Amino acid sequence: MAHIELNNDLPGIRGLMYYSPETAAPMNALAELLLRDDDNTLTRGERELIGTYVSYLNDCFFCQNVHGAVAGHYLGCSMDQVDAIKNDFTSANLSSKIKALLVIAGSVQKGGKHVTPEQVEAAKNEGATDKEIHDTVLIAASFCMFNRYVDGLGTWAPQDRSFYINRAPQRAEEGYIGSILK
Amino acid sequence: MAHIELNNDLPGIRGLMYYSPETAAPMNALAELLLRDDDNTLTRGERELIGTYVSYLNDCFFCQNVHGAVAGHYLGCSMDQVDAIKNDFTSANLSSKIKALLVIAGSVQKGGKHVTPEQVEAAKNEGATDKEIHDTVLIAASFCMFNRYVDGLGTWAPQDRSFYINRAPQRAEEGYIGSILK
Repeated sequence: MAHIELNNDLPGIRGLMYYSPETAAPMNALAELLLRDDDNTLTRGERELIGTYVSYLNDCFFCQNVHGAVAGHYLGCSMDQVDAIKNDFTSANLSSKIKALLVIAGSVQKGGKHVTPEQVEAAKNEGATDKEIHDTVLIAASFCMFNRYVDGLGTWAPQDRSFYINRAPQRAEEGYIGSILK
Repeated sequence: MAHIELNNDLPGIRGLMYYSPETAAPMNALAELLLRDDDNTLTRGERELIGTYVSYLNDCFFCQNVHGAVAGHYLGCSMDQVDAIKNDFTSANLSSKIKALLVIAGSVQKGGKHVTPEQVEAAKNEGATDKEIHDTVLIAASFCMFNRYVDGLGTWAPQDRSFYINRAPQRAEEGYIGSILK
């Protein structure tokens, strides 16, 4: 049960966004831009993977399963394969560029000052652009917000992971704007 | 020097928002709603104090000084007094309600699951409403994003704290929408 009365039984961030639609609007606009905007050289699957990995590091069950399922949908991976990436992305079948960006995302999760010039240089050496590094940092930072919002207010999350897998194609299709009730 | 080429010499988050105005828009909209919206029973000073305290815990020099100066402006405190609150708010001349909310904000900074039912109950016992608890959690969570964005990309910050104090009245007057170049 959530720490406050949300007057709805929607899970995770959706219950919070239904409770507070004013703040939901810019949060969903930010997620839409970061995760789905077409003017981006990181694929949607790669961007969802960054959010999934940070949510995993923050131990946020709802977010890591929502976004893990969407990442799997885009990348053609099963949830088991997404789990394997979360546990050890260095051995996964991913590009060296996204691996270097996941290192940066992992540092952002710990705190901004954990990102080192060497990590940034390594990503650039693998072909990451300044915008890709910018977006990686901001996606990771934004999930440090979303995860804390979801867990800091004690929301509930469906425990059956097929819930997330079944909804992923619709989320991938419709995006995050107006996603609260869907 | 920032980790990426921002093509401007604006400090802190302003340099990032100039570089990426698309993502700046929803981030500033969120800050404006959380920190300045009039439909809120927490004062602007109290809300800025929550952001300042979380920025202090995240060791973000730019954010803790921008928002510390604005909090001081609203609360009629000197920067020394704001520093004393950051170091030990429990002995500060603040209401028991805001002290209980700062405890929750401190837990959110560590991670959402650090917020306990007892902390929430204590805040309710001091008169905090569900919306005040909601807003405290989301302000704290959003500063975990803003702080990581600022430091994760290695932005620079003026070291002379009078810079922040001198700008605070203008920031308090004009708010966060369109704040990048001002």
